[in-house]
Amino acid sequence: MPYLVIEHLEEISNWVWLEYRHASEWWKNKLIFTNVLPEEREKLAKLGSVIGESVTRFPFDRSKIIVLDLQAEEELKPEDIDDDTIIVVGGILGDAVPRGRTKEFITSKMKGVKVRHIGKPQFSIDGASIVAKLIADGRRLEEIEYEENPTIKLDEFSEITLHYAVPKLDGKLLLTPGLIELQKRELGYTEADEEISDEELIEFFEGKRELA
Amino acid sequence: MPYLVIEHLEEISNWVWLEYRHASEWWKNKLIFTNVLPEEREKLAKLGSVIGESVTRFPFDRSKIIVLDLQAEEELKPEDIDDDTIIVVGGILGDAVPRGRTKEFITSKMKGVKVRHIGKPQFSIDGASIVAKLIADGRRLEEIEYEENPTIKLDEFSEITLHYAVPKLDGKLLLTPGLIELQKRELGYTEADEEISDEELIEFFEGKRELA
Repeated sequence: MPYLVIEHLEEISNWVWLEYRHASEWWKNKLIFTNVLPEEREKLAKLGSVIGESVTRFPFDRSKIIVLDLQAEEELKPEDIDDDTIIVVGGILGDAVPRGRTKEFITSKMKGVKVRHIGKPQFSIDGASIVAKLIADGRRLEEIEYEENPTIKLDEFSEITLHYAVPKLDGKLLLTPGLIELQKRELGYTEADEEISDEELIEFFEGKRELA
Repeated sequence: MPYLVIEHLEEISNWVWLEYRHASEWWKNKLIFTNVLPEEREKLAKLGSVIGESVTRFPFDRSKIIVLDLQAEEELKPEDIDDDTIIVVGGILGDAVPRGRTKEFITSKMKGVKVRHIGKPQFSIDGASIVAKLIADGRRLEEIEYEENPTIKLDEFSEITLHYAVPKLDGKLLLTPGLIELQKRELGYTEADEEISDEELIEFFEGKRELA
């Protein structure tokens, strides 16, 4: 199984943490964080390997690196990926309007690596990690479903729209577990100490229930 | 500054922990542990980068790797080491009688890497890490002092002999901080909750005082 590198480029906010945790559920022990500050190492070590150096400077074998970049000309294919391939996802949230930041922070600094895209939509960090995993497992990009700007109903009066694409598997949105709960809390819908289980969230997304 | 990789091959006993901590004092953020189990990641992340994969399988750039191996033909020299060289120390304690375990566990599994020795004596993990750092900083092997099988007086009736070599700098033994305290505790000389400071230890080794 190949490696997934998340180049860590932001503070570990609650939102970032949930995305990283979701990526680790898919990549397990093959997840590596790069560009990690000493004081962040222990926290991120809960989820994967942690390397202080940036992926752009660390002495990886560059012939094994594939950087995912919206601006790449070729799409990522299963046959690009070997057992020790390193797939790099830029850890940048909130880039709903593509601004070429992966190219700015990563691709332009790494000679000799492959660059591939995973389609036109803008995915979150965990979304891109999941799409990469599905392709590493043998699926082709055109077989992978996703929903752009999904809208999540919170109650009969309100909804949240996520301004990026979320991958789907067997018709189900693979939304970041805990993210809607976090948003509800931040919007004042939920008390801070109310926990919503992943099961409840899945049923919520399937339209089977409303959240308390 | 180059990287030091410690291939983690033992449980994290108190002794191993003290050696790792000492190595991290010398290598700071350039220390990387490889072959780390998921449940050990957080603990070792206190001291450096942590990678789950073994150094023998991880996709490092092998042209940048130097494995320290007693059985190497060439000695490690400052001119071998670039800014992104990866120096690998096998994390094996207690090999007082050389048994070629570095070759068995590391060198034989890594094609395309450089192999170098740091002299005939058998160093501990931290000792080898320090010798490598001194050479990376420009010293030549023949300039580095060490003491083989140093004997440490505990009180007027007893002493501890360490069956390996300990490097010296400016005439001072660079002994693992806390190690004598640990040994005294295990031998029943010290209560578990008595702490001995590094300063006391240094003075002890300089013969200026006895430990309480």
